[in-house]
Amino acid sequence: MTLKMTVDEMQAFVEEHFPHMTDNFIVESLADHQATVRLQVGDHNLRAGNTVNGPSMFASADISFYLALMGMIGPQALAVTTNCSIDFMRKPAAGCDLIAVATIHKLGRVLAVGDVMIYSEGNEKPVARAGLTYSIPPR
Amino acid sequence: MTLKMTVDEMQAFVEEHFPHMTDNFIVESLADHQATVRLQVGDHNLRAGNTVNGPSMFASADISFYLALMGMIGPQALAVTTNCSIDFMRKPAAGCDLIAVATIHKLGRVLAVGDVMIYSEGNEKPVARAGLTYSIPPR
Amino acid sequence: MTLKMTVDEMQAFVEEHFPHMTDNFIVESLADHQATVRLQVGDHNLRAGNTVNGPSMFASADISFYLALMGMIGPQALAVTTNCSIDFMRKPAAGCDLIAVATIHKLGRVLAVGDVMIYSEGNEKPVARAGLTYSIPPR
Amino acid sequence: MTLKMTVDEMQAFVEEHFPHMTDNFIVESLADHQATVRLQVGDHNLRAGNTVNGPSMFASADISFYLALMGMIGPQALAVTTNCSIDFMRKPAAGCDLIAVATIHKLGRVLAVGDVMIYSEGNEKPVARAGLTYSIPPR
Repeated sequence: MTLKMTVDEMQAFVEEHFPHMTDNFIVESLADHQATVRLQVGDHNLRAGNTVNGPSMFASADISFYLALMGMIGPQALAVTTNCSIDFMRKPAAGCDLIAVATIHKLGRVLAVGDVMIYSEGNEKPVARAGLTYSIPPR
Repeated sequence: MTLKMTVDEMQAFVEEHFPHMTDNFIVESLADHQATVRLQVGDHNLRAGNTVNGPSMFASADISFYLALMGMIGPQALAVTTNCSIDFMRKPAAGCDLIAVATIHKLGRVLAVGDVMIYSEGNEKPVARAGLTYSIPPR
Repeated sequence: MTLKMTVDEMQAFVEEHFPHMTDNFIVESLADHQATVRLQVGDHNLRAGNTVNGPSMFASADISFYLALMGMIGPQALAVTTNCSIDFMRKPAAGCDLIAVATIHKLGRVLAVGDVMIYSEGNEKPVARAGLTYSIPPR
Repeated sequence: MTLKMTVDEMQAFVEEHFPHMTDNFIVESLADHQATVRLQVGDHNLRAGNTVNGPSMFASADISFYLALMGMIGPQALAVTTNCSIDFMRKPAAGCDLIAVATIHKLGRVLAVGDVMIYSEGNEKPVARAGLTYSIPPR
């Protein structure tokens, strides 16, 4: 298995294609059918209860799966999420980054399916878990 | 059925409890077991393909359901999403606001369950649909 | 909109293609992007707590959506579910049939997306709600 | 960690509380926060396309998670599924049993959350993956 992009290429890709993104996502690592992405948690990611808000966790799941897919098929910016089911299990600590680990379980011609575990950095118990399906555009 | 909050009280509640939110959500209307919320789409809500990004649609689903719940139980900021399953069906137009219509199907003592239909303003076909479960904290 | 199958054709289709099915599903009605299906609840549909078991509710959601799709595209037995997210909200009464109402929100070339509300006959509050995605095979 | 039930006790529990079940589920193993369950696939589990039908896969996910939970909290028959989101990824072979591996990621006082990977015996690529939430009744 050869990955189609390096971590540096992917970081540049994210910054080019999502310039409006107010969140700070760092590509931590790429592997066969996997990507690990850090969300540097800032004030705008927080919500009542001194915890990270749901949209920030959703974004972490979505981006990390997207990048795992880009690693496998190369930079196809128009791949889109068709479904995401996310379970929020524990409140992330406000002062910790989120670490999202995405795994692709099926990479088909049209659909890619997998899941993402999200952690508060430094805690081994996941804060959220998501199943995602992406639609891959015809070339 | 008497709602526990007015639209104005709810708008103030959102601004007080989510001061860091970079998105502009407007409470359009409240009704029995329902809320309708507008996301004023700005550049930071967009993604590659000139469309609204997934996290903005997720946030619209999450906030509108939360506000439908606040309308029924009053301002309990610590209610939290436990699950959201969202289907992305059509690409929202970049220049249109999102309109999210949340309906609570079950309001239990501990859990509230319902769904949200999300529209691009001016188009009757939904862009996304989500099922959500919220956990209601003990008083 | 002309439906591709009548209720009688569909009932015959179900009995031909799912001969092993131990459940008794009756096609109640078909409409544009919709189907209503009855599960005649028998002893084998029950579980501890004198209620209908989860797999029977899942089957009702799955079959009703499948038939709504067949109504639109004609009898293509090989369409398959790719995702189903189901919320169980209330315990169905053991002695009542289940009524599942499926609605297709998007009928694309490759994917169909929609939802199903499931009721215990005679009770207007839903017992379950499901979002489904079906993959439509190339002709 | 001490499990609250043995494999034999659990098999007896399943047969006592689900006597109407037409499917043949075998408890393969139990571990901390985990259960592995076999569905002995018979003709009534099949569907068009010579594959295992969706309700049988859903039932495998539901039962295996339920038993993982019983292993942790003891035999509380009234625990109920509140949500299941299942992705169907590959068609199971008609002649192979299904093996479902359930893992609990969060065991709370009121809710248990986790996921299930489902395999066709002898194939390491999963046929389906599900996320589930169970509600635990007050004692």
